[in-house]
Amino acid sequence: MDSVPAAVAAPQHDLARHFTHVRGRSVQLAAPLSPEDALLQSMADASPAKWHLAHTTWFFERFVLASRPGYTPWDPAWDYLFNSYYKSLGPAHARPQRGLLSRPSLQQVHAYRRHVDEQVLAQLRDGDLGSDALQHLQLGLHHEQQHQELLLTDIKHAFWCNPLQPPYRDDLPIAVSAPSAQGWVEQGERIVSIGASAWPQHAAFAYDNESPVHRVLLPAHALAERPLSNAEYRAFIDAGGYRDPRWWLSEGWALREAEQWQHPLYWDDDLLREFTLGGWRQLDPHAPVCHLSYYEADACARWAGARLPTEFEWEAAAATQPVEGHFADDDQLHPHAGQGRGIRQLFGDVWEWTSSAYGAYPGFRPFAGNLGEYNGKFMCGQWVLRGGSCATPRGHVRASYRNFFMPPARWQFSGMRLARDLS
Amino acid sequence: MDSVPAAVAAPQHDLARHFTHVRGRSVQLAAPLSPEDALLQSMADASPAKWHLAHTTWFFERFVLASRPGYTPWDPAWDYLFNSYYKSLGPAHARPQRGLLSRPSLQQVHAYRRHVDEQVLAQLRDGDLGSDALQHLQLGLHHEQQHQELLLTDIKHAFWCNPLQPPYRDDLPIAVSAPSAQGWVEQGERIVSIGASAWPQHAAFAYDNESPVHRVLLPAHALAERPLSNAEYRAFIDAGGYRDPRWWLSEGWALREAEQWQHPLYWDDDLLREFTLGGWRQLDPHAPVCHLSYYEADACARWAGARLPTEFEWEAAAATQPVEGHFADDDQLHPHAGQGRGIRQLFGDVWEWTSSAYGAYPGFRPFAGNLGEYNGKFMCGQWVLRGGSCATPRGHVRASYRNFFMPPARWQFSGMRLARDLS
Amino acid sequence: MDSVPAAVAAPQHDLARHFTHVRGRSVQLAAPLSPEDALLQSMADASPAKWHLAHTTWFFERFVLASRPGYTPWDPAWDYLFNSYYKSLGPAHARPQRGLLSRPSLQQVHAYRRHVDEQVLAQLRDGDLGSDALQHLQLGLHHEQQHQELLLTDIKHAFWCNPLQPPYRDDLPIAVSAPSAQGWVEQGERIVSIGASAWPQHAAFAYDNESPVHRVLLPAHALAERPLSNAEYRAFIDAGGYRDPRWWLSEGWALREAEQWQHPLYWDDDLLREFTLGGWRQLDPHAPVCHLSYYEADACARWAGARLPTEFEWEAAAATQPVEGHFADDDQLHPHAGQGRGIRQLFGDVWEWTSSAYGAYPGFRPFAGNLGEYNGKFMCGQWVLRGGSCATPRGHVRASYRNFFMPPARWQFSGMRLARDLS
Amino acid sequence: MDSVPAAVAAPQHDLARHFTHVRGRSVQLAAPLSPEDALLQSMADASPAKWHLAHTTWFFERFVLASRPGYTPWDPAWDYLFNSYYKSLGPAHARPQRGLLSRPSLQQVHAYRRHVDEQVLAQLRDGDLGSDALQHLQLGLHHEQQHQELLLTDIKHAFWCNPLQPPYRDDLPIAVSAPSAQGWVEQGERIVSIGASAWPQHAAFAYDNESPVHRVLLPAHALAERPLSNAEYRAFIDAGGYRDPRWWLSEGWALREAEQWQHPLYWDDDLLREFTLGGWRQLDPHAPVCHLSYYEADACARWAGARLPTEFEWEAAAATQPVEGHFADDDQLHPHAGQGRGIRQLFGDVWEWTSSAYGAYPGFRPFAGNLGEYNGKFMCGQWVLRGGSCATPRGHVRASYRNFFMPPARWQFSGMRLARDLS
Repeated sequence: MDSVPAAVAAPQHDLARHFTHVRGRSVQLAAPLSPEDALLQSMADASPAKWHLAHTTWFFERFVLASRPGYTPWDPAWDYLFNSYYKSLGPAHARPQRGLLSRPSLQQVHAYRRHVDEQVLAQLRDGDLGSDALQHLQLGLHHEQQHQELLLTDIKHAFWCNPLQPPYRDDLPIAVSAPSAQGWVEQGERIVSIGASAWPQHAAFAYDNESPVHRVLLPAHALAERPLSNAEYRAFIDAGGYRDPRWWLSEGWALREAEQWQHPLYWDDDLLREFTLGGWRQLDPHAPVCHLSYYEADACARWAGARLPTEFEWEAAAATQPVEGHFADDDQLHPHAGQGRGIRQLFGDVWEWTSSAYGAYPGFRPFAGNLGEYNGKFMCGQWVLRGGSCATPRGHVRASYRNFFMPPARWQFSGMRLARDLS
Repeated sequence: MDSVPAAVAAPQHDLARHFTHVRGRSVQLAAPLSPEDALLQSMADASPAKWHLAHTTWFFERFVLASRPGYTPWDPAWDYLFNSYYKSLGPAHARPQRGLLSRPSLQQVHAYRRHVDEQVLAQLRDGDLGSDALQHLQLGLHHEQQHQELLLTDIKHAFWCNPLQPPYRDDLPIAVSAPSAQGWVEQGERIVSIGASAWPQHAAFAYDNESPVHRVLLPAHALAERPLSNAEYRAFIDAGGYRDPRWWLSEGWALREAEQWQHPLYWDDDLLREFTLGGWRQLDPHAPVCHLSYYEADACARWAGARLPTEFEWEAAAATQPVEGHFADDDQLHPHAGQGRGIRQLFGDVWEWTSSAYGAYPGFRPFAGNLGEYNGKFMCGQWVLRGGSCATPRGHVRASYRNFFMPPARWQFSGMRLARDLS
Repeated sequence: MDSVPAAVAAPQHDLARHFTHVRGRSVQLAAPLSPEDALLQSMADASPAKWHLAHTTWFFERFVLASRPGYTPWDPAWDYLFNSYYKSLGPAHARPQRGLLSRPSLQQVHAYRRHVDEQVLAQLRDGDLGSDALQHLQLGLHHEQQHQELLLTDIKHAFWCNPLQPPYRDDLPIAVSAPSAQGWVEQGERIVSIGASAWPQHAAFAYDNESPVHRVLLPAHALAERPLSNAEYRAFIDAGGYRDPRWWLSEGWALREAEQWQHPLYWDDDLLREFTLGGWRQLDPHAPVCHLSYYEADACARWAGARLPTEFEWEAAAATQPVEGHFADDDQLHPHAGQGRGIRQLFGDVWEWTSSAYGAYPGFRPFAGNLGEYNGKFMCGQWVLRGGSCATPRGHVRASYRNFFMPPARWQFSGMRLARDLS
Repeated sequence: MDSVPAAVAAPQHDLARHFTHVRGRSVQLAAPLSPEDALLQSMADASPAKWHLAHTTWFFERFVLASRPGYTPWDPAWDYLFNSYYKSLGPAHARPQRGLLSRPSLQQVHAYRRHVDEQVLAQLRDGDLGSDALQHLQLGLHHEQQHQELLLTDIKHAFWCNPLQPPYRDDLPIAVSAPSAQGWVEQGERIVSIGASAWPQHAAFAYDNESPVHRVLLPAHALAERPLSNAEYRAFIDAGGYRDPRWWLSEGWALREAEQWQHPLYWDDDLLREFTLGGWRQLDPHAPVCHLSYYEADACARWAGARLPTEFEWEAAAATQPVEGHFADDDQLHPHAGQGRGIRQLFGDVWEWTSSAYGAYPGFRPFAGNLGEYNGKFMCGQWVLRGGSCATPRGHVRASYRNFFMPPARWQFSGMRLARDLS
């Protein structure tokens, strides 16, 4: 029946298996954390791990379970606590106060997870979910994967704020490092197809901000074959890059002065070591540089006589590549050097800042209903990053995937790739 | 000789005449202001009129006169006071402190202006200016025109902050108002040429941020024939637009709540009157709405089932139109309704917010030398406005002209035009 | 030998018993808290319960154990974490960041407590502690009692910030309430003796800020027999006290406007219920009003045609009274109405704001050495409160005891007693 | 008739002469300022000279002229502009915005002054003023003298904020400097009479905060014979006083760190020169140190093994001295060394910080009516200074006079005198 989108036709036991896997993965990521660790909120932009666990569950409760008439909420008071920013669903707890929620306890949140999981799986099994609910369930899994990455980057920041600077895990392997040649891939002017078909009208999942597919004229340009390395970024520092306003955007320089930045976040002042999810380590010169703000990435590119790629240049290059790389599932949780030749390492390791402000594609339609608030209302003041990182779940990203953060943000695994105009 | 750009070949007595005209116009605009008025700085984003008068003069002294060996500065201490933001020229007085410069006096600043004018005109007459200096002189005149508009918008804000709310001038005429039909102009997908050739390599002046000329693929879309009117914006207010977060960007809504916005800046709470450079007046329902932030323009467009145009859509439409409209020289200093049919009123009256973040065109090269700081370093966090306003000097704008402000800015004559996707 | 102060002559097994009691009481007070609760820091002025437990232990480690040559610290890194503000001992972790210390865990802090307790008790038993160490031990117990009260007031605030507003304990009894007559006790002008003899030179413990004993001339005045009740404060509210600037100090009114105060902290807007350590309860009209800022107490007194007493008037009245009242040991943890006639309820229930700025007595000498920072450096901008509260450990306060907080502080059990000039 | 207070019986032509003198002096003090200078407001705590001129005039209009039935205000809109903080008289323009009042012009304010002066003098001449109005007139003159001092300290700060740092006057003489011996005057414990009889009930003028006369028991103490000199304060700096938290109050140290204080306000970093109302000058080692915050004065005293005197110790010493010294009328406008022996220089040159928090005397009654807001509502968070300065009009201060500022304030001519406990 053509009114049932293809997405819904997916065998429901596959969906149940995937649901179980994703939901389990969140629990697994939180496992190294004590209840105290799981409460930490080190800045307004970050959230406690416990909050991530609860909010992702709330998402399923609110958008899947609660859509059935007569549904009895787990606890009506939690609706206020774990709504992130959906104003159409009512008021939400203030974001900077999330770290004050010692109650409900981590244990209660885990019970909440189990309860919701059981209900969702039962309804899946019984075929009780209509097409809207099934779509929300699918969306909820992608949503949960986003929060899995945030859980990691948020706890990294929180542990770094503790003078004891404990590792998130002390069993993370250290990747063997090797130099990898850099080069440029040139492209003449051409029209490319950007974006993904709108889901759920089409079967393949994509966020609303990735659609519709549309045509973009790319100018002639060259892209660096791989992300910039720590050693290459170090050269920018050594050349006085953090002392010379010439390379910097005006508001980037003001922030650099105010915050006294001298190097990427998590680097030691000796420029030899960096703080990782596995604790303090030697900086790997060949690994992609990360934890850059947009301002730093932009300044370094300018110093290098280059620029950052647009998100379209990046996507056009990525569209021809397999979505392979180092992801969170590899359990390294830190970027490392790639191998090979030609354009590479577009996926995984580090998100790549693009020069594109995050905005709507021509013909953009937000998701229907309350979920319309998911992406659209942030389309101002944020910059697009592409490709996923070592903290992104494998399978979560794709060539058309658009991540976005404010230019000052440094606590994501955010790196850079150079681009150049050809003309 | 082909090393002399065309711009320099312009007859020098024309340039002298133009110089005299533009410089005189600034003095004329400041004439209604007392020395006390000319010192007002009502917010960090605004500058005192006296500072505008001095800084534009400093520009000629520093970039034209001081380029000659052996030049004796008017007063070496003033270099620090009237440098705006050129870090390569040394430190500058903090912007929010400009309102504390009771010295030098307005009278001294006028003497400074006369001195610099005499020197520039003498050098022009004597042919003492090399091609660089001549280019800087030309640039300085465009620069001065920008400050003429700011002088007007800044003093409007300052007077509005005074509980007495005096008019800037009490002799400004009130334009006769008449309704003007609205309609849509549709365009299919097409590739257009955007931007201006780089000056001074080409004769026609353009800022560096307008170049190079490049090709852009526009999607199929429709543009409103004229800017949105006060009456049309009032419908948005009446429909509860300022109370419904659904229409608003997330950070726009947060600002609206913090600042308790209920209507455009300068409107009275009765929604019947507005503060103008001629004092308080009845709101003209047919005149273009203005003094909107980007957030308000964007929210109103969304409420209307439309969107803001991209700067490219705007420019493509404008490229076919004569640069005609209501400008500052008309001495009304307030937007009013236009007449006619078809796409119109692109120039003058109100700057139109576009949905385009202000960034570099592919192949962008900043002006050479210290003037490279003129535009490029602001290419983050600002949005493009197009077309000029009732406070823009006639002759200053063109189809490729890019103005830019932060999304919260409301004190410019900033309005909006609707656009729609066709698909 | 007369160089050994009397304090040190106290039988050491009594000291050991007292040490064990006080240290155990802290653990007991923290018992209702989960590790998550114990990490909460709801504002910069408050500290997590875990931090209180660790800091009080650090005090014994640093000032008692570490004074012996060759002492091996429990963990050198903790010195930085749990130093509160002793600049002479080196840098300390920033106060507002205490809530980010998920590590060390609550469990580790308890192990730390046990370790230090064992060492202290062993040294006490073995007679290894010199007179300085013994004095520091005694001081440390008084110090710990102060933190016991803060632990209670801080967690009350933290739980109130949680939208779920959980009780600290759900087994706290509710006191039976009865009206208690109010009256005035008059005193003619007289010279009184204020303060306590300096410890440890004299046997009885007192903080340095209570000494030396000195003579003060009190004017003729009257003191209310008991603290102001909720019902009496409610009359101030009902009379428009929170809407009339006439009663308020200038900076108090500004704060009231900014924070939109309409009633004491923890009262419901219905003026019928209040949040307590036992959760939400009906307001008891006869119980002493509490959780007032200095500004509110001062305004209410002015409205009542009275004033707050000076700390000297208070002390002179208290000096003749037994130190009896409702203290934390009574396990009610909320003020309730007293009984009897004449001047009463000076001790316990609520701290009473005085009109005295906290300053040095004539001849004041801070404690020797690093402990000189204990009290003296706060002698500016704080106001004196007297008498202890329902959250103060029994035995901690005395007539000469001076507590002090900033005028805006409301989260302590701070109430008021009226006074009047007689003349 | 005994219901007419003595104050009113003063020959009215004397009052007229005094009125004319004081009012004229304000105009004289503003004479060196251009209209632009007179608009400067360099911080929220300071006001423009023009505002001082207008507000003092408003005081006479509001409290003297407007008390007569049928009075026609000069301009009803000005009431809002020039009310400082009398909430009982209606809302007032926000203090930090006073620098935005280019209108009314300085010229208009001078016309306002002349108008009000004429009306007041006419009513005085015609005997039209009742006793209340006459008292308000007297109070208004003392009020105006306070603002004369503020006009000087505010413009000094404003000119110092201008990078050109112009002198207020370039014709101020430089006093000849000579060393003056320092010593201590000892006093045993005694009861002293403090304060002034309430005006207008008694003929001699005093502010409400100086009364009633009451008895205070002073402890045995010693007072330094003269204020601390620049050379003596320099020794504190040279001894590392600004680098050692040991000497500082906790919040003083925090402010010192935040503001990076290394010396008194207006000193050059070379510690050799200071900015004065006559421009930059060599520091006079023998002159009293000034432009200290309370924190600096307190820290220096502690370093010197001394303390600041209480306001009662100061007043008891001053009560026996003639009110002589260097005042504003001497036209030096900068403190200089005194001569002689014994306790001296209590009046004029520099205000002396005392250790007394500003509060109410026992039995304090604010002025009647709206003027009750004059002093009482600031009795929290401010510290008392005594004795007047080189910027205080001669005749304005007396032994019982209490000035008060917040501890961080440095822009007044605030110095210090040492005291010591004797015991």
